[in-house]
Amino acid sequence: MARGERTVIVSNRGPVTFSRSESGERTHSRGAGGLVTALNAVSRSGDDVVWIASAQSEEDIEVSREPAPYEVDDLRVTLVEHEPEAYDLMYNHLANPLLWFVQHGLYDLPYTPLLGEETRRAWEEGYVPVNRNFAEAVSRTVEDAGFPIVLLHDYQLYMTPLFVRERLGADAFISLFVHIPWPGPDYWGVLPEYIREDVLESLLSADVVAFHTRHYARDFAETAAQVLGVTYDTERAVIHHSGREVWVRAYPISIDPAEFEELAQSESVLEQEEFVKGLPGKLLLRVDRMDLSKNVVRGFQAYGRMFERHPEMVGEVTFLAQLQPSRGDIPEYARYAEVVQETAERVNEQHGSASWKPIELSMQDNFPLSVAAYKNYDALLVNAVRDGMNLVAKEAAVVNERDGVLVLSENAGAHEELNDNALTVNPFDLDEQADAIYQALTMPDEERRRRAQALRETVMSNTIEDWVEAQMRDIAAYRGL
Amino acid sequence: MARGERTVIVSNRGPVTFSRSESGERTHSRGAGGLVTALNAVSRSGDDVVWIASAQSEEDIEVSREPAPYEVDDLRVTLVEHEPEAYDLMYNHLANPLLWFVQHGLYDLPYTPLLGEETRRAWEEGYVPVNRNFAEAVSRTVEDAGFPIVLLHDYQLYMTPLFVRERLGADAFISLFVHIPWPGPDYWGVLPEYIREDVLESLLSADVVAFHTRHYARDFAETAAQVLGVTYDTERAVIHHSGREVWVRAYPISIDPAEFEELAQSESVLEQEEFVKGLPGKLLLRVDRMDLSKNVVRGFQAYGRMFERHPEMVGEVTFLAQLQPSRGDIPEYARYAEVVQETAERVNEQHGSASWKPIELSMQDNFPLSVAAYKNYDALLVNAVRDGMNLVAKEAAVVNERDGVLVLSENAGAHEELNDNALTVNPFDLDEQADAIYQALTMPDEERRRRAQALRETVMSNTIEDWVEAQMRDIAAYRGL
Repeated sequence: MARGERTVIVSNRGPVTFSRSESGERTHSRGAGGLVTALNAVSRSGDDVVWIASAQSEEDIEVSREPAPYEVDDLRVTLVEHEPEAYDLMYNHLANPLLWFVQHGLYDLPYTPLLGEETRRAWEEGYVPVNRNFAEAVSRTVEDAGFPIVLLHDYQLYMTPLFVRERLGADAFISLFVHIPWPGPDYWGVLPEYIREDVLESLLSADVVAFHTRHYARDFAETAAQVLGVTYDTERAVIHHSGREVWVRAYPISIDPAEFEELAQSESVLEQEEFVKGLPGKLLLRVDRMDLSKNVVRGFQAYGRMFERHPEMVGEVTFLAQLQPSRGDIPEYARYAEVVQETAERVNEQHGSASWKPIELSMQDNFPLSVAAYKNYDALLVNAVRDGMNLVAKEAAVVNERDGVLVLSENAGAHEELNDNALTVNPFDLDEQADAIYQALTMPDEERRRRAQALRETVMSNTIEDWVEAQMRDIAAYRGL
Repeated sequence: MARGERTVIVSNRGPVTFSRSESGERTHSRGAGGLVTALNAVSRSGDDVVWIASAQSEEDIEVSREPAPYEVDDLRVTLVEHEPEAYDLMYNHLANPLLWFVQHGLYDLPYTPLLGEETRRAWEEGYVPVNRNFAEAVSRTVEDAGFPIVLLHDYQLYMTPLFVRERLGADAFISLFVHIPWPGPDYWGVLPEYIREDVLESLLSADVVAFHTRHYARDFAETAAQVLGVTYDTERAVIHHSGREVWVRAYPISIDPAEFEELAQSESVLEQEEFVKGLPGKLLLRVDRMDLSKNVVRGFQAYGRMFERHPEMVGEVTFLAQLQPSRGDIPEYARYAEVVQETAERVNEQHGSASWKPIELSMQDNFPLSVAAYKNYDALLVNAVRDGMNLVAKEAAVVNERDGVLVLSENAGAHEELNDNALTVNPFDLDEQADAIYQALTMPDEERRRRAQALRETVMSNTIEDWVEAQMRDIAAYRGL
């Protein structure tokens, strides 16, 4: 990136949250999670980068009212204050239930969703004004810059490209990165027509629309073709719209391996390792947010079926399921967590004994435990119904010390990169998953070693730095630099 | 079609069922339903046409064991005997639950389907052998013919094109018509890989793959491109595969208007009209099989919501829902029928009175009642979640005598032809449907007349005869005649 140009990153959740200590001083805590790590890497890539995000805490709102970006550590942060009801409508009524469900294909279509005026209100009085706020913050941030580069992130910000374009004109470079799957045109069609069309029009006012896989990029282009009638050039991955070129690209997101190698040696992880190493038999692991898209229920069912098909495995393995609680106030999520627990209990009753619990269910927020388990699994199950990327598969491959085997859903974004050395499963097929778990747990050492090493190398060959550089190269190419 | 050539129609369900009378004589009854009517028209289109179908009754099996095609009325019929267990696996374990659900998008993907060895068995020991039986029957039927034309129909027969091609070679003309929606690549991916790929390979061994809408044709081409990596020419609607051209076409199926005009005057229909005309207020109608794809529950919810939004409509309308029982032995269907009844009861309790029942639920097999209601509705609700074509919309438009207004789901195949003069609804949006029902019931007479007439003309301009001719023209064109 050329020096002296102003780059703006925008994501709903930011890299820091501010609070006030008892003594009245402003303090802050750095956020965690894959997207924040990734955007930190983007932030480090230029000299004049400002990161815009929603104010979440009371102290965040104070920060948002100060004129200049707030400098914290190596970052410059601008927070945006939203009207609380608008934010609630955007987040809890539009983005997380509706867009998340549509893009992961989670509805029971004969019965749900029930759309209507409430959807329209969440759109018009929530999603749209929140997106306007972001665009205004972008506009204020770049007003004195020459050629602004605006990097927008994820499904809370679909209308921001259009509003930024309206404010900054044709010369600004605008990209939007979608971090969740893109559905086909039919499932996109579940949305009300005004959302369906407005989102696509907005995304096509960006210069680059980016995804984690070529598959999502193609589904997006096909959706735009069917809904708006645009034409796209499959070879060049370009959509022609309103006399402009929109590049539809895949940049598979990754991790910072050094961060995980360091974490793996941290005190808190070493403490958790005692528990993990105490679990009887081989270790089958899953680490997920408790989300309907993760396929936890079928994972347990498949595991139970493995004991039916291979009774010799009884007592020889423990399945540690580390499930971070998530969105428990959405009824579908609360019900899912119940079914997950019931299914685990059933498997434990059916196959367990006084001395051995087949499934160890950990429903807590415990990242050190996850990393401790990453180091020690013999087999890792990632069987998502649908998953934008799934960074667990990459994180675990880097720190695992037992040549653990990856069982990987073909519907996880990571499958495009890791399929050669994982055991691929159809997430809807219980017997296929049962067999893959069995195969993973009984695989000869040499094949385990070869696969584990290849997985690690694949991850190391496309780190978060590479992810940033690929995008920066394309920005330069798009601008003809 | 050139004379002297042998044409073979194959469909799972045939035009006649045989039985034996008490006196020991063979009798037969003609089948009803949209597909049979349509194929009757195909059958009339040539001199040497044989219709092959599955034997369903004991007497059918007797007929199937006779060497020559059975001549009945104007038809020549060959019945195929399947091993009962194989047929059960094909019909009740593979085609109706799995393919139907996948192609209509009816699964609750976080929980269902649960695929596995039973799926494989239904495929290998049911679907595949039944399809081989059809192919052998085709082969026997055309053995003495020069250039055979093989017209295969619907989702029970996906493997038959391949098996026929293996037997008859490159010179035979083979088409398969899919009468249900085609899903996008993602939903097709719910199927096990062997079904996903084998079906596509088989369909692409046909010369023409046909659908009711351009939308399904495009989704099919995109599915083939993503799953098998074939290329397709969007302009010409051609897939290139194994050095051959496969034409991917849309022929919107239709009805025989004369048949319905005659029916409308029949004694049995006139009898039912007394009941229909006795219903209080304006008549809102729906006529459907009781299927999860038909969106009956949301239809009732939307109707209830109309009374909330427009209390002046209370007492002014009756909603007659004529729902033909269907597939009640599939648990999802039994549950759906219960929810339909509960929803109707709730609306009736909430908005009805001693003298007026807002919803008149008729869960019976009563075709004369349907036609009687066709003649008398003020508004017709066709709000399917997804529907291959929906012939109800066409049948009703032809015989309606009240300038009835059509409220039509954008996900019904009929929408591609009828959208200009129907009120389009998103089937997931309750308020949009409530408003459309209200608009339909309160529309000024002149607009009603104009729309109803245009709908009728659209149907009359593409009857079942036109549907047959369009296909015959393409067969001639494909063969370069």
